[in-house]
Amino acid sequence: MPLSSFYEIMVEWGDCDPAGIVYYPAYFRWCDQATYRLFLKAGVARDDTRSGQWKEGTPLVAAECSFRRASQTGEKLLIESHVSRFGRSSFTVTHVFRDASGEIAAEGKETRIWARKDGDASSLKAVPIPGEARKRLGG
Amino acid sequence: MPLSSFYEIMVEWGDCDPAGIVYYPAYFRWCDQATYRLFLKAGVARDDTRSGQWKEGTPLVAAECSFRRASQTGEKLLIESHVSRFGRSSFTVTHVFRDASGEIAAEGKETRIWARKDGDASSLKAVPIPGEARKRLGG
Amino acid sequence: MPLSSFYEIMVEWGDCDPAGIVYYPAYFRWCDQATYRLFLKAGVARDDTRSGQWKEGTPLVAAECSFRRASQTGEKLLIESHVSRFGRSSFTVTHVFRDASGEIAAEGKETRIWARKDGDASSLKAVPIPGEARKRLGG
Amino acid sequence: MPLSSFYEIMVEWGDCDPAGIVYYPAYFRWCDQATYRLFLKAGVARDDTRSGQWKEGTPLVAAECSFRRASQTGEKLLIESHVSRFGRSSFTVTHVFRDASGEIAAEGKETRIWARKDGDASSLKAVPIPGEARKRLGG
Repeated sequence: MPLSSFYEIMVEWGDCDPAGIVYYPAYFRWCDQATYRLFLKAGVARDDTRSGQWKEGTPLVAAECSFRRASQTGEKLLIESHVSRFGRSSFTVTHVFRDASGEIAAEGKETRIWARKDGDASSLKAVPIPGEARKRLGG
Repeated sequence: MPLSSFYEIMVEWGDCDPAGIVYYPAYFRWCDQATYRLFLKAGVARDDTRSGQWKEGTPLVAAECSFRRASQTGEKLLIESHVSRFGRSSFTVTHVFRDASGEIAAEGKETRIWARKDGDASSLKAVPIPGEARKRLGG
Repeated sequence: MPLSSFYEIMVEWGDCDPAGIVYYPAYFRWCDQATYRLFLKAGVARDDTRSGQWKEGTPLVAAECSFRRASQTGEKLLIESHVSRFGRSSFTVTHVFRDASGEIAAEGKETRIWARKDGDASSLKAVPIPGEARKRLGG
Repeated sequence: MPLSSFYEIMVEWGDCDPAGIVYYPAYFRWCDQATYRLFLKAGVARDDTRSGQWKEGTPLVAAECSFRRASQTGEKLLIESHVSRFGRSSFTVTHVFRDASGEIAAEGKETRIWARKDGDASSLKAVPIPGEARKRLGG
């Protein structure tokens, strides 16, 4: 069974646009932050930067989000996150945003690959998801 | 035939993360900016804020992006945008990102609704796409 | 004596740049969020948006920050905030960022004015700080 | 005489907050982007990331900005940037933002040091400004 984590955010003034509602790229920022917390809870390092340079991590190959209702400054949203699909080197993280009433406000999906890099961006290449990470995340 | 617009961005230092590649929510920011330019080119106001408050615009109901290759600081990306689907009050804007070599670096889709608001976020409601806007955008 | 509030942030992956350290505009975002929390604690609405449009608030006239040490992803910073100067319509909020060891990592100052707006941005004008707000913030 | 560069930005919808004006941390993002362009014009690499890791660059020790008038979505601002002070390893970049009428909308200052890093953030240390960089920037 996949490991689940919870992350509460408050919609900040600077997250909102002149329409008075969340500027939508913020939801993807929250998805990324929620995945970071899922990995923290699993005890798995998402990004290996120990040497002072990034050598291994989980870059995105696709991301999507649907928005059910608009949120505004000061609202709290609770995000439940888990890995909903494990491939060989790719996996999908599903994020469900609920507002204070428990209603779903938004739903996001990130498709990530496990990858290594030895130089600049062009050296990025997919590697199999490490067995220990897969196990801890519930795959 | 749908109207097409082009928008060139340069990947900024602050758009990138410690992996040295674009932090992915930035692509959605660029999609929104590209839609703004598509509306500018069509001569259609995307957001009515003349009174000092936002009364009409095109909030998102869904957004997605797939990433073919990672880009880094200083790279230029050319975004081609057009409305790929017109519904009654909803429409989809497709964005294709090409790098300097002409290869597709990313592809995004925004599903937006035409909406009005008379007070706070809860008063947002969908309205039909105005005929003139539809015509100018090529629907 | 000025009211003091505390706000803890975690440095996020997306707050950092390819140097692996916080991209500096993030500190100003945190200052703004810390001021929001200071007002929350004081029981003073920082921004009047009840009608669905912003009519009153505290825009910036100046901001500054000094950075004593670089922070990286996963670090927690505790921000102590208080109004350090009250003028007639302007006031200064001082923010001290401390890292986990208690050392000062950064210090910020925001100079804000109390202002109203009746239309677009050009209608913004300074007004005296309301007596009740001043009292609650410790002026 | 210091080298001067010019950088024009358009205020984006997502740069603005529910008050309908620029959310102030954006000005610091623009200052950083303007410094990047000043270095480009000088033919000086601001950040050495050739190996896939950042080894040398110009992190901030202080930043400040004063805001003369509020700008809104769609406005164009022209930023003139130059190094206004050269120390041994630190230097100050001054940025003047002018609106379409030529009026000063904001003024920013960044104090940066020339620095190297051999591992994580704690290994950052100041080094003298390279002679060639100083000369090209007009010091």
